[in-house]
Amino acid sequence: MLLGDLTTPALVVDPGTLQHNLTAMAEALPGERLRPHVKAHKCTSLALRQREAGHRSFTCATIRECEGMAAAGLGEDLLLANEVLDARRLGALVEAGARITLAVDSEETIAAATSGGVREVLIDVNVGLPRCGCAPPDAGRLADLARARGLAVRGVMGYEGHVVGLEETAERIAGCTASMEILLAAHEQVGGSLVSAGGTGTYAINTWASEIQAGTYVLMDTAYERLGLPFRQAVFVVATVISSTDGYAVADCGLKALGMDHGNPSIAGSEVWFCSDEHVTFAPAAPLGSRVFVLPAHLDPTLALHERLHLVEGLADVLSAGAPAKDAEVLDTWPIDLRGW
Amino acid sequence: MLLGDLTTPALVVDPGTLQHNLTAMAEALPGERLRPHVKAHKCTSLALRQREAGHRSFTCATIRECEGMAAAGLGEDLLLANEVLDARRLGALVEAGARITLAVDSEETIAAATSGGVREVLIDVNVGLPRCGCAPPDAGRLADLARARGLAVRGVMGYEGHVVGLEETAERIAGCTASMEILLAAHEQVGGSLVSAGGTGTYAINTWASEIQAGTYVLMDTAYERLGLPFRQAVFVVATVISSTDGYAVADCGLKALGMDHGNPSIAGSEVWFCSDEHVTFAPAAPLGSRVFVLPAHLDPTLALHERLHLVEGLADVLSAGAPAKDAEVLDTWPIDLRGW
Repeated sequence: MLLGDLTTPALVVDPGTLQHNLTAMAEALPGERLRPHVKAHKCTSLALRQREAGHRSFTCATIRECEGMAAAGLGEDLLLANEVLDARRLGALVEAGARITLAVDSEETIAAATSGGVREVLIDVNVGLPRCGCAPPDAGRLADLARARGLAVRGVMGYEGHVVGLEETAERIAGCTASMEILLAAHEQVGGSLVSAGGTGTYAINTWASEIQAGTYVLMDTAYERLGLPFRQAVFVVATVISSTDGYAVADCGLKALGMDHGNPSIAGSEVWFCSDEHVTFAPAAPLGSRVFVLPAHLDPTLALHERLHLVEGLADVLSAGAPAKDAEVLDTWPIDLRGW
Repeated sequence: MLLGDLTTPALVVDPGTLQHNLTAMAEALPGERLRPHVKAHKCTSLALRQREAGHRSFTCATIRECEGMAAAGLGEDLLLANEVLDARRLGALVEAGARITLAVDSEETIAAATSGGVREVLIDVNVGLPRCGCAPPDAGRLADLARARGLAVRGVMGYEGHVVGLEETAERIAGCTASMEILLAAHEQVGGSLVSAGGTGTYAINTWASEIQAGTYVLMDTAYERLGLPFRQAVFVVATVISSTDGYAVADCGLKALGMDHGNPSIAGSEVWFCSDEHVTFAPAAPLGSRVFVLPAHLDPTLALHERLHLVEGLADVLSAGAPAKDAEVLDTWPIDLRGW
C-alpha cells in the first residue's frame, strides 16, 4: 500500500524518526531507568519496540491499558500510575501472571487494592500538581497501612506534571528540584526501591527519580517540540485538501482526528486558521487533492482518536522535500489497541 | 445493569430528556424540514429514534457515516455535506440501493462524483464561513457543469457555521439573514428543490432553508446551552471520584473522554480547574467513590471518543436530586458505530 492509498485523515509515523527517538532515550535512560508511559500512544506494537530498546517495565494510566499490555505479552512489570476504587480487573491480571503495581493515595484506594487482589503498590505523593497523590506528610502512614494490609510497598511515585511543560529550562530545573525534594522526603518515610516520576520534559533533569515515566518522547508533539529536546516529530495526521480558494484551503482533518486541549495543530509553511469537526482551514491555498501533514499540538488525546497508525517509508524525506510523494510505501500498520476503558 | 456498575468514564443519556428534544424539534421542524446531522452523535440507534420522530433524510460528514447509516437501513436519503475527491465508496452505496447526495464546490469534486458513481449532488456555496463552498457567483456555472456531466443537481447547501453559535439572538438573526440572502441568490442560478442549511443555533431563525441540518439539539452541550434554546442537556460523562483532599477532588474523566476545543467541561455545583489525559480536577472536594456527571463543552468530538452510550432510567431525577443514585437502571446500551473514516 502507498501513502496515496490511505483513507484520510490517517496517522502516519516516520520509522527512522521513531527509531531515532527510541535510541536517543535508551542511551539517556537505559533499561529500567525508563518506565515508558503507554498512555501517550496506546499501541502495544509500539510498546514492543520500546521493549526491544531495552525497557521491560511500563507505565499505564487505565486498567484497559494494563489488560491490553498483559494480553500482548508485555505484562512483566506494569505500573498503573493512577488511583482506582475497584481493582478486581487488576487482580484478575495478577492471578493470570502479570506483575501489576498500583498507585494508592488514600485508605480507600489501599482497601480497593487489597480487596481487588492486587499485591504491590506505590504510594502516590502530591509533589505540587493538584491532581492525585496524598499530602506528603501522610505518605509514611499510608505505607504502614498498606503493609499492615498485606501489600508490598515498592516505593513512591510523584508526578511533576505542573513542571514538565515549562519552556524555560531554568524554571523546569527549579520546579523539578522542588518537587523531587518533596518526593524524596516522602520516600524516606515509605521505603521501597522505586522512586517513580518524571516525563518527557524532565527526563534529563530529574536525576532523583529511580525511573522516569516519559511517553511523548517516542512520537512527539508541537507542545514538547518547543522545549528543544533531542526527540523529533515522528507522527503526523495526513489529510487531503478537499476545497481551496485564492486565500485558503481546507483539508479533511478536524476535531475528531486531533487532540485540541493544547490548541490548534500546525502545518509546516502554513497558518492554521481553525478546525471544525472534520476540517482544518489554513492559508495559503493548496492544490485540491494534495496531501498535507498536520502536526498535533498534543499527542496523547490525538492518538486516542485513531484506530491505527501507519509506518511510512521515508516520510521524513517526503516532508523535508515539501512534496506530497503519494508513492511513499506504507511499511506496516499498527492498531492503537489500548483505547477505551 | 445499574448506573453504579458502569466502568467509568462512560457516556450516559437521560431517555426522557432525549425524547423531549426529539419531540420539540419534530414539532418545530417536522418530517423533511429537518435533515438531522448524524456527525453530532455518530450513533445509528439514535438516528433510528430520529426517524421514528418523522425525519427520513439525514446529513453526514464522512463517507464512513454514510456507509454505517446505509448498513443500518437508514440510507433512504443521505446527504454527505462535505467534499471528497474519491467518491468510489459512495458509488458503491448507490449501487447497493442507498440514495446518496454529495456536496460539490469545484470542478474537481464534480469529477470525483461522476467517476465515483454518485448520481446526485448539491452545490455547496460559501455563505460566510471560510471553509468549504464555492464562491457564490460560481454556483450557477458549477451546476451547469454538473448537469452536463450527467449529475442530477438537487439544489444548494450553505452552512452558516460562523453564525450558529452567536449568543445574541439579534446577531444570530442578522448573520443568518445575510448568509441566506447569499444562498438564495445562488439557488436562483442553480435550481433544484433543496436549500439545505442551518444548525441547532439557527433552527428556528433560518426560515429560508427548505431543510435544516441540526445535530446537537438531540443531546446538547454547554456551548449551545447558552443560547437559551428549548432543548435540554441529555448526555453526560459519568466519572468516579478517585482522589480527594480538603480543597479539591479528582475524577476519572479527562482529555480522552471529552472534546476540548470549546474549553473545559462543567460539573454542576463545582468549579472545574483543569483536565488531564484521564482526570478532571474540580472543587470543592467530593467523597471518594462517588459519581460525578460531567457536561461536555462540545458534543460532537466528545461522542467520537466513546465506543458506546448508555440510556439510564430517571437520570434527570438523579441529577436534580444531586444524589449519585448508583442504583438507577441502565435501560439500553447503544454503540457509537459511525466513528472513524
